[in-house]
Amino acid sequence: MFEATKLGRRIPKDAFKAEVPELRTRLLAAQRAIREARVPVIVVVSGVEAAGKGELVNRLNEWLDARGVQTFAFWDATDEERQRPRYWRFWRSLPPRGEICNLFGGWYQAPIERRFRELCNDAELDAELNRIVDFERMLSQDGALIVKFWYHLPQKEQKRRLKELARDDRSRWKMLPDKSKFAEQYRKFEQVAERVIRITDRGIAPWHLIEATDRRYRDLTTGRTLLAVLEARLAEIAATRESPAAAVPAPEPVAAEPEAQITILDRIDLSQRLERNLYKVRLKRLQAEANELAWQAYKAKRSTVLVFEGVDAGGKGGAIRRITNAVDARLYRAIPIAAPSDEEKAHHYLWRFWRQIPRAGYMTIYDRSWYGRVLVERVEGFASPHEWQRAYAEINEFEDQLVESGTVLMKFWMHVSEDEQLRRFKEREDTPYKRHKITDEDWRNRERWDDYKLAANEMVARTSTEMAPWTLVAGNDKPFARIQVLDTFCRQIRRALEAGPRGDGYLTCETTG
Amino acid sequence: MFEATKLGRRIPKDAFKAEVPELRTRLLAAQRAIREARVPVIVVVSGVEAAGKGELVNRLNEWLDARGVQTFAFWDATDEERQRPRYWRFWRSLPPRGEICNLFGGWYQAPIERRFRELCNDAELDAELNRIVDFERMLSQDGALIVKFWYHLPQKEQKRRLKELARDDRSRWKMLPDKSKFAEQYRKFEQVAERVIRITDRGIAPWHLIEATDRRYRDLTTGRTLLAVLEARLAEIAATRESPAAAVPAPEPVAAEPEAQITILDRIDLSQRLERNLYKVRLKRLQAEANELAWQAYKAKRSTVLVFEGVDAGGKGGAIRRITNAVDARLYRAIPIAAPSDEEKAHHYLWRFWRQIPRAGYMTIYDRSWYGRVLVERVEGFASPHEWQRAYAEINEFEDQLVESGTVLMKFWMHVSEDEQLRRFKEREDTPYKRHKITDEDWRNRERWDDYKLAANEMVARTSTEMAPWTLVAGNDKPFARIQVLDTFCRQIRRALEAGPRGDGYLTCETTG
Repeated sequence: MFEATKLGRRIPKDAFKAEVPELRTRLLAAQRAIREARVPVIVVVSGVEAAGKGELVNRLNEWLDARGVQTFAFWDATDEERQRPRYWRFWRSLPPRGEICNLFGGWYQAPIERRFRELCNDAELDAELNRIVDFERMLSQDGALIVKFWYHLPQKEQKRRLKELARDDRSRWKMLPDKSKFAEQYRKFEQVAERVIRITDRGIAPWHLIEATDRRYRDLTTGRTLLAVLEARLAEIAATRESPAAAVPAPEPVAAEPEAQITILDRIDLSQRLERNLYKVRLKRLQAEANELAWQAYKAKRSTVLVFEGVDAGGKGGAIRRITNAVDARLYRAIPIAAPSDEEKAHHYLWRFWRQIPRAGYMTIYDRSWYGRVLVERVEGFASPHEWQRAYAEINEFEDQLVESGTVLMKFWMHVSEDEQLRRFKEREDTPYKRHKITDEDWRNRERWDDYKLAANEMVARTSTEMAPWTLVAGNDKPFARIQVLDTFCRQIRRALEAGPRGDGYLTCETTG
Repeated sequence: MFEATKLGRRIPKDAFKAEVPELRTRLLAAQRAIREARVPVIVVVSGVEAAGKGELVNRLNEWLDARGVQTFAFWDATDEERQRPRYWRFWRSLPPRGEICNLFGGWYQAPIERRFRELCNDAELDAELNRIVDFERMLSQDGALIVKFWYHLPQKEQKRRLKELARDDRSRWKMLPDKSKFAEQYRKFEQVAERVIRITDRGIAPWHLIEATDRRYRDLTTGRTLLAVLEARLAEIAATRESPAAAVPAPEPVAAEPEAQITILDRIDLSQRLERNLYKVRLKRLQAEANELAWQAYKAKRSTVLVFEGVDAGGKGGAIRRITNAVDARLYRAIPIAAPSDEEKAHHYLWRFWRQIPRAGYMTIYDRSWYGRVLVERVEGFASPHEWQRAYAEINEFEDQLVESGTVLMKFWMHVSEDEQLRRFKEREDTPYKRHKITDEDWRNRERWDDYKLAANEMVARTSTEMAPWTLVAGNDKPFARIQVLDTFCRQIRRALEAGPRGDGYLTCETTG
């Protein structure tokens, strides 16, 4: 795979100087157009040790308008990063629409190093690479342009450079292969890199292999490649604008009408009730237990994510309050999901939920969540069919990462009947301190009851996974619903604590730049 | 001071139940109005151990609309927080306009505990309290409403509760006084608390002392007080709207015309030049040294903040690039300051700069900065005279905190003559890859040259402190200017590293909730 990077290609100084001004001008123009088109650009800078990736990034920063370019390295994880799912640090680094980020190694660095150091086997590496493919596809479908560079050196040249680096003492932060086994390690690194590149070299995010022996060749080729990729995307955008008919047609609706009439939600037994005195006793006991378990989870460094969705007036707020009243306010954060801020709008829709992921031992309660994508955004047409249909897989992958990192994830759908909703709406209008909870929008949503039910049904069907099942809460009787939520809460945390520590240990492997 | 909190006041259950619905209704109405008025509300919840601050916060969360209330505790600092100036974590927790935050202990907790544990003396405590007064004044002048509650218990009651807490094992996270010395410690804590409250009890952010013996009294009194404070602010806002003439008149302009003609900037010798060959040699040497020093600072965990301001086309970008080309891209972040995002606009103007403060060992380069407040915002009238005139003190205080935490702070004013600026504007228009750097706005700003010069002069005069002096860069000759910047950069970092570690050790004292 790397033969073409060992040809000793060079660019003479004069040729370099002659080409650069034109290249810079066009790069800047492309950058400006990309900003206007609001395309986020992710440049991954990877390759063998001593290829000069740092120099190259400095060169890109020089050629581009530095306002609009950010650079991130991932060699030095903070504890806030270590205490969250692995990809949190990448989400932190993704560019807003219209900007460019250079990522040293990006999400490739850890898997390559782990495999190189025999900390995982090929199958584990492949599983991680498949996650990467999904991740890049997701970003790409959201409009991101992903440009991946791999810088390579012939064995002899790398050896020479590493010796030099070792001599001048600037290498102290880098990973140096054992000198005596250099040839063997060089081969092994190439094998790992080849596997990584082969599996992750997809049309939506292809790799560009560049020989790094000659600096001018390396930089100029990178600049030309980046320019070509940016200009190609701009041309695509222009073409789509001119002939919008050429846009991909929306996929067929998934659920056919007849079967859609009966949903999983209809199977919830809404007649279940809990007698008021029994409720008081159980509430008190469960709330004490919830606080105790929250402290135990804190000590065990297990985080908890709670998701509350449901029909309007389904009792989300009341159920959440029964938890937040019980648990020490130092341990949780309740996040109401309203309209996104402009920073949030400038990112993938999952970005704002990643922002709030709790660190180890803490709890985040989402009052509405990422499921808005397949509920309100679907029903109201804020997301296109393409967007909300692919969201199921994106959400499952996101939740997989949460669970994999040891987070206890619970998802509650608070359900009430149409009649009960009406009764509650009217009650809200009649109770002064509840009036703020009822708006015209609630009444409008109610008219689309069947659409919401259909969407919720499909959501549960597609995202109630073994790792992250939905709890369907029978909400007509508030005491019953609240106890069901609290009981599930305690049971799940207790079970997680009994099962012992989780987490795949990826981040225990500190990696170098 | 605490006599009034030892009267054993109680509220019977019936009276409590009778009052709460009305109180909740009015609190919710006030919260809604405060949101519309975009007032950020900061509730500080402090007091003696075992007063039930956690319960109280849960109660407030229940009474208020939880969407719009966030709670923060400061007992468990992350290393991202520890590696930055102390107040970074408070800035992270400040509410956006229109929202409410409950802060457990807030900025009071650490000073009280440090004094209580004899980790500082009264003079040091007072210095910290003066900082707090400044901080609260700054937030208040920006429109924040600060409500500070102190919950107190008689000695006997506190002793009883602590015993109970110790028994049921839920006290493991709290600070328990030594039982044998209880009376002595109780008195001592009261002495410290009294000093703190006395010094920080200002009109803009008064303390409310509340007896916490009876839960219903504690909660109801808190609710009533909060309501009264919110309603008073709303009344004030309404009054100002009705009679804007009653608004405080703007202070007199500071600089009288005649003296303003000659400024500090005129004293910069713009004729200084550097011969091109000499430039190349020195550039190379200084860039190598800059990288080496950046790595040393990383190892020593000293962070660096660079501020670049100056006239348009003054050479900021070029000077920054000479640093960023030299320093490893993993170590710095260059932040171009453009229009604030809506999240940034919803906070105090310094908030967006605090966001980017580097953690220990790293470097942030601000391409334009908080000085915009006293430059462009002043000249263009985006900030009122009140706002920009008080900004000098706010900025000095902010920079004091940076320096105190061990950050190496450098501020560069890049200056060129009016003629040289004109030449550069024209050159930019003629060079394809420089054309993006010149806009109509630059030409417009140029027409206000004298206003900008006056503002810059006053800025330097007022913010060139011993701890954080301005470096005035003679920018007419680019090579000279760049070497001056790089040379200052290297000299300052070297000096800081030679002087040894800094930081006042505040955060080494972990505090409990």
